Amino acid sequence: MRLVTFSHTLGPRLGLRLGEVLIDLAEAAPGLPRAMKSLLALGDAGLEAVRQAAATPPASAQLRFSSVRLLPPVPDPGKILCVGLNYVDHAIEIDPKRLPEHPVFFGRLASTLIGHDAPLLRPRVSRQLDYEGEMAAVIGLGGRHIPPEAALAHVAGYALFNEGSVRDYQFRSSQWFLGKNFDGTGAFGPELCTTDELPPGAKGLRLTTSVNGEIVQETCTSDMLFDVARLVATLSEAMTLAPGDVLVTGTPSGVGFARTPPYFLKPGDVCEIELEGYGVLRNPVADEG
Amino acid sequence: MRLVTFSHTLGPRLGLRLGEVLIDLAEAAPGLPRAMKSLLALGDAGLEAVRQAAATPPASAQLRFSSVRLLPPVPDPGKILCVGLNYVDHAIEIDPKRLPEHPVFFGRLASTLIGHDAPLLRPRVSRQLDYEGEMAAVIGLGGRHIPPEAALAHVAGYALFNEGSVRDYQFRSSQWFLGKNFDGTGAFGPELCTTDELPPGAKGLRLTTSVNGEIVQETCTSDMLFDVARLVATLSEAMTLAPGDVLVTGTPSGVGFARTPPYFLKPGDVCEIELEGYGVLRNPVADEG
Repeated sequence: MRLVTFSHTLGPRLGLRLGEVLIDLAEAAPGLPRAMKSLLALGDAGLEAVRQAAATPPASAQLRFSSVRLLPPVPDPGKILCVGLNYVDHAIEIDPKRLPEHPVFFGRLASTLIGHDAPLLRPRVSRQLDYEGEMAAVIGLGGRHIPPEAALAHVAGYALFNEGSVRDYQFRSSQWFLGKNFDGTGAFGPELCTTDELPPGAKGLRLTTSVNGEIVQETCTSDMLFDVARLVATLSEAMTLAPGDVLVTGTPSGVGFARTPPYFLKPGDVCEIELEGYGVLRNPVADEG
Repeated sequence: MRLVTFSHTLGPRLGLRLGEVLIDLAEAAPGLPRAMKSLLALGDAGLEAVRQAAATPPASAQLRFSSVRLLPPVPDPGKILCVGLNYVDHAIEIDPKRLPEHPVFFGRLASTLIGHDAPLLRPRVSRQLDYEGEMAAVIGLGGRHIPPEAALAHVAGYALFNEGSVRDYQFRSSQWFLGKNFDGTGAFGPELCTTDELPPGAKGLRLTTSVNGEIVQETCTSDMLFDVARLVATLSEAMTLAPGDVLVTGTPSGVGFARTPPYFLKPGDVCEIELEGYGVLRNPVADEG
């Protein structure tokens, strides 16, 4: 299933995409939760209820998919957990002397999020906005001390993330946090693809980033140093994962600042991240204004 | 004013502490917001309404302060923005070769928070839980691109924070995030002290941390490398600050892992952080269980 959160005059709504048709779940299944986090908290029962409601939707619940404005599939995750240096080629691009022995986690704030087609914002204070194409895993049922072999059962689905990074702010101290948390630099979407539509752990899929149609990053999701199951397990040693938490799994080589010469995003550029079997997250770039 | 969030059978409530009396604001001022973030969003008008409601509280609104269980003053901040190496002596303790040229920011998750008197949790997976006594500033009116000279007007008040850190997890990669985000390791409270009761920027105040009655950290808040106004201004270059956001301003020297021999917290220990003119944040230590 392809689940989205979309903008509606009455507030954000959940939808189920069926090709070019979007089923408005507030109309088709008024008894279901109105927010993705709450729906995911119901586990398989919630997804099954969506499936049933969408089987015979009333006419009033059927929208043209292209007519709605998408929001991030989870607009308000309790946690956005990012991983750095999780592809060998990118880790070497940053520090050729060593590979990380443990996943390098850092946090993003929900205030950075934008949805599909919304502009990535180049901030007033910097000219060094850079792309990072990544696959995101969204937690379904939460938990703590989840062993790796049980971890994939806690993932509800996958999406894409453009982990926009303001490089001068990122690297001016030892901690990357500030450069990773500018408003409007975290593109997330377009939709949550449930795990049944992709291989286990979303492994073996081609992941590319393009800027203005030219491929700048290309990898296979099997090339992660720490796979999704391992990341979930390690995070849960420290914290209780909750429905709707987002795990942003790292970017491969080819980021703009490491190119020769460096390339930074400018207004008018268009970033597209594509995951095989999933689809495309597309965002133009605009100035903060 | 001393504002708290406390546990009530009907859910978290706001209170105003007047010495040993706690005014239950849900009873004394039923028209006011029920959550600290929403109250702070009203700015001075909200605080003035609290002041008026508390002047002639009904008997049903008067509780014994010592009878309630305190929650973090803002239980669900949208952002918890921490600063590392913000006192000269601690920065030297960590790296004697250089002082940071810019504030070193990192993020904490709301899932780490506990209130006054609640136990700091030593996690199952580590024996290296350490204290960090810090002053916290809480944002009142939000904003972006706030100049330093206007920044203190965006601070609603101050509190204390024990920025509990799991050192082996903190230092096993370049980013401190995981070791700073174990469940139940961020003590925040006991109350929000509005800015009118402290010097501008809460400068010039003695800040101490004690473990089992022995002072292990001692500083003056004027010894910050980057003061509250500068921190607010710098953060707002990147992000829109919002009511209830928490800025945790850094710890002085004397943390446990840098002592000779190192000292790590164990069940039964009691941490107390004291800020001159404010009061004490006290938390025992317990095992995660």
